[in-house]
Amino acid sequence: MNTYPISRYPVPNLNDLPGDIRARILEVQEKSGFIPNVFLTLAHRPDEFRAFFAYHDALLEKQGGLTKAEREMIVVATSGANQCHYCVIAHGAILRIRAKNPLVADQVAINYRKADITPRQRAMLDFALKVAQESHAINQADFEALHAVAFSDEDIWDIGAIAAFFALSNRMANMIAMRPNDEFHLLGRVPKGA
Amino acid sequence: MNTYPISRYPVPNLNDLPGDIRARILEVQEKSGFIPNVFLTLAHRPDEFRAFFAYHDALLEKQGGLTKAEREMIVVATSGANQCHYCVIAHGAILRIRAKNPLVADQVAINYRKADITPRQRAMLDFALKVAQESHAINQADFEALHAVAFSDEDIWDIGAIAAFFALSNRMANMIAMRPNDEFHLLGRVPKGA
Amino acid sequence: MNTYPISRYPVPNLNDLPGDIRARILEVQEKSGFIPNVFLTLAHRPDEFRAFFAYHDALLEKQGGLTKAEREMIVVATSGANQCHYCVIAHGAILRIRAKNPLVADQVAINYRKADITPRQRAMLDFALKVAQESHAINQADFEALHAVAFSDEDIWDIGAIAAFFALSNRMANMIAMRPNDEFHLLGRVPKGA
Amino acid sequence: MNTYPISRYPVPNLNDLPGDIRARILEVQEKSGFIPNVFLTLAHRPDEFRAFFAYHDALLEKQGGLTKAEREMIVVATSGANQCHYCVIAHGAILRIRAKNPLVADQVAINYRKADITPRQRAMLDFALKVAQESHAINQADFEALHAVAFSDEDIWDIGAIAAFFALSNRMANMIAMRPNDEFHLLGRVPKGA
Amino acid sequence: MNTYPISRYPVPNLNDLPGDIRARILEVQEKSGFIPNVFLTLAHRPDEFRAFFAYHDALLEKQGGLTKAEREMIVVATSGANQCHYCVIAHGAILRIRAKNPLVADQVAINYRKADITPRQRAMLDFALKVAQESHAINQADFEALHAVAFSDEDIWDIGAIAAFFALSNRMANMIAMRPNDEFHLLGRVPKGA
Amino acid sequence: MNTYPISRYPVPNLNDLPGDIRARILEVQEKSGFIPNVFLTLAHRPDEFRAFFAYHDALLEKQGGLTKAEREMIVVATSGANQCHYCVIAHGAILRIRAKNPLVADQVAINYRKADITPRQRAMLDFALKVAQESHAINQADFEALHAVAFSDEDIWDIGAIAAFFALSNRMANMIAMRPNDEFHLLGRVPKGA
Repeated sequence: MNTYPISRYPVPNLNDLPGDIRARILEVQEKSGFIPNVFLTLAHRPDEFRAFFAYHDALLEKQGGLTKAEREMIVVATSGANQCHYCVIAHGAILRIRAKNPLVADQVAINYRKADITPRQRAMLDFALKVAQESHAINQADFEALHAVAFSDEDIWDIGAIAAFFALSNRMANMIAMRPNDEFHLLGRVPKGA
Repeated sequence: MNTYPISRYPVPNLNDLPGDIRARILEVQEKSGFIPNVFLTLAHRPDEFRAFFAYHDALLEKQGGLTKAEREMIVVATSGANQCHYCVIAHGAILRIRAKNPLVADQVAINYRKADITPRQRAMLDFALKVAQESHAINQADFEALHAVAFSDEDIWDIGAIAAFFALSNRMANMIAMRPNDEFHLLGRVPKGA
Repeated sequence: MNTYPISRYPVPNLNDLPGDIRARILEVQEKSGFIPNVFLTLAHRPDEFRAFFAYHDALLEKQGGLTKAEREMIVVATSGANQCHYCVIAHGAILRIRAKNPLVADQVAINYRKADITPRQRAMLDFALKVAQESHAINQADFEALHAVAFSDEDIWDIGAIAAFFALSNRMANMIAMRPNDEFHLLGRVPKGA
Repeated sequence: MNTYPISRYPVPNLNDLPGDIRARILEVQEKSGFIPNVFLTLAHRPDEFRAFFAYHDALLEKQGGLTKAEREMIVVATSGANQCHYCVIAHGAILRIRAKNPLVADQVAINYRKADITPRQRAMLDFALKVAQESHAINQADFEALHAVAFSDEDIWDIGAIAAFFALSNRMANMIAMRPNDEFHLLGRVPKGA
Repeated sequence: MNTYPISRYPVPNLNDLPGDIRARILEVQEKSGFIPNVFLTLAHRPDEFRAFFAYHDALLEKQGGLTKAEREMIVVATSGANQCHYCVIAHGAILRIRAKNPLVADQVAINYRKADITPRQRAMLDFALKVAQESHAINQADFEALHAVAFSDEDIWDIGAIAAFFALSNRMANMIAMRPNDEFHLLGRVPKGA
Repeated sequence: MNTYPISRYPVPNLNDLPGDIRARILEVQEKSGFIPNVFLTLAHRPDEFRAFFAYHDALLEKQGGLTKAEREMIVVATSGANQCHYCVIAHGAILRIRAKNPLVADQVAINYRKADITPRQRAMLDFALKVAQESHAINQADFEALHAVAFSDEDIWDIGAIAAFFALSNRMANMIAMRPNDEFHLLGRVPKGA
């Protein structure tokens, strides 16, 4: 295990955290086998931590017109454009797992236009990148392009809101130099039981 | 009163909203004399609404090394760069009121480099714009430049987190075509009692 | 009244100016109730002053297919893109007055794509911004898009020439740090007699 | 002689022009041996023609801290950045003649950073390009860099004003597709009498 | 094994290739256990294939002031900036192997500024990215920054030439939609014998 | 003859070069009447020299759907975009000679969109510039646009490969500050025998 710092800011000790935050973190650890660094590093600010994960869960864990793998594709594509270590590497792992595809995360992170995805997913990522990079120019034609591949207005809100939320998340991670856990690099690359 | 839509999405009726959200909105209306459109338009998604305003309040309403006017300067400068109608116009009004200065919001929105602000505030906005526009390049020298004008690491987190939060907010407002209330254009431009 | 400098360069005394320039300035003062700073600051160079205002008047004061309010929209939209304090604030005031609309100047300055303007005005500003930002790429299709909304070739010259003239004007104002008069911020925001 | 159009707009017949404009054009023809197309094409709008050339002469023909060759360097460097056929080719010829140097115009048009010019001229062009491309960011340090190589504040105004004037000129030429006279391509490339 | 095409162009059959090219490819296959797609796809043009690999070997296989891992870092960092699937994924694998580090390739591809590399390597990549993205602005100060971390002029040529060669390589791979072999995604991520 | 250096690196003496390189250079000198500096400056690295010219010849000297003049147009247009002195000036001369047109090289270097070229050549240069500047976004529609003006897939490879090769060449020339021979500035501008 390396000893690189995981944040520019102090990282709280689990035992010093408010109960609700500690509980949330222990739950994640139980499920993942390790504590993703985003939990420890953002816990430096408990109120912001709570709002951040409430927002995250509202967008990434919900049911709807997008699969969970598609939601992660949006994260990986926009985080690649924003050059965010944490989000590309951590959510790349989640994308591999949710899509059951060991290749797609690297592809989407580097250049989603050439990834092994459907034309509908390609349209989804075109819009997500527009939200990420030039939201001032979004117009009715963008909505129509998504309607044409059977996304509803509520789906479009989901796509855009995920891109917008990671506009925040990428900037926080870049500002505090959040480091992804080493484990993420390999997760989802090798079939279980292989 | 004009009849332009205030969102691309359905705007909920106040009476149909969950109680906590309705209460929050009525409180704002009581205080401001009108309901800022961000409350009505984001209430279309109650869970996201709650997370959004929890995050907002954690960053904008807190005490600390930045005055409330300075927090609003960050909002206006980065929202100008992101070409967001709602945030420039609504937070421009709040900035005029909090700074008790009828000119500074227009100045900061157009080009903060030439605004009537202190060198310390100028350094604050240089960093906020870097978070908004090229967070991948943030480095130790940026932190040192802010230390040099007496910002603490916690102040820097505040500056960056506000810029990051409005990276989200501007993209949401641009995506749903959120329209600022007409009232904001004039607020804080004329001294009370004038 | 604040005491901020209005230019990086010496500002001539009205009495020391050549007669024609002084006369022009007094005429403006008579009409506006104050002397806009562009007159005093550019008078530092009398020959350039004369050429500047001759050019300005040929484009902004003429009759033709564009209303005076539309001419000012072009100024405000391109000056916003060029981040020019003086031109956004001063011509924003003129736009409010000429359009008899207290909102449109702020809208156009921040993001003309979402302003309360007609599709024809939107096409006009698309072209103006192309002249301002990538004139090398102007082609026949741009002319056809404007013909399609009933602009003549002479109207198109007007649109492009105004954008080109303020390409000059914005750069001069930015170079000399020309400061708008405080009065402009409020002009046209409150109905006369209100 | 080719038959390519020299403007997207009608080109007036010399005999139909107002007397002062015709006189100016005949004077140029007498001196140069041909009529540069900028005169014929801009004469389509007499009032703008007069203002344009009054401004041009005030900046390019004056005495001062910059040589006439240096003034043309500014034109060529900024017009190269703006991808303007007319100004690079026509003023490239004038620069070759005024600098008595057959190479420098091509060098400055392509990449002034590597041209055969003095460090002082290099600083002059750094500033001119900043005026041309990001005038919103001009600050006191830019003025100090020019003072350091012995430019006065009045010289700096000249540099910036020439860059600003050709910001206008390049956009007009690009909009109307102004074509340079074939003669300019060869002028100043071969020593007289060679 | 998936059945996605590996090029927009016909991929030659190994047996139809000129002897020298076939021999080169068989040698690689022997060493790697598979044929990297760059060999098969570029063999569509034998003369260009020979020049490409002669150039490649002259830069990547040579001895000198840069380690082989460092040469691959340059490839991965610049290919990430150019959004090239093939080069990021294939050379990412080679970098992991040569650096004996399963993490560094992902880090360098996403944002080399935050990778686990030495300050000297950081300076090397700063220069490589400048060659990749704004070579027109390279100047003496860039050379001095590299001398300061003990790179010789010949080392600097190596750094720049590798960045320049992959400027070519990335563009070819993007144009022909060259697909990396699936094997590369996992290579070097798990310690041998693990 | 001026005495400016032709490279940041040592320039080898012709007599010290390997025989094959010396022979190639003498052949060029015989044909051109002088030694283009690209030969002397790149000979500093014999292996890279051989690969460079093998690649160059495979792309520029071949027969096919593009004329030799068209191949040079691609070089000049992309080298202009990359601000490369050597390639714009040296290949501008070759373009003038091959196209038997003294004007087209200057036009293409400054703004190919307005050059005296055919619509088919315009489409060719649109693609070449896309390869040069945003190859990550190349897609099937780009190929179809070229098919529509009767370019075959093999022609498209040629166009893209020339743009890609000069992406390399421009970066090398910019890095080593390669200076074009003075002779190139005038070549092809005056009809032979004039």
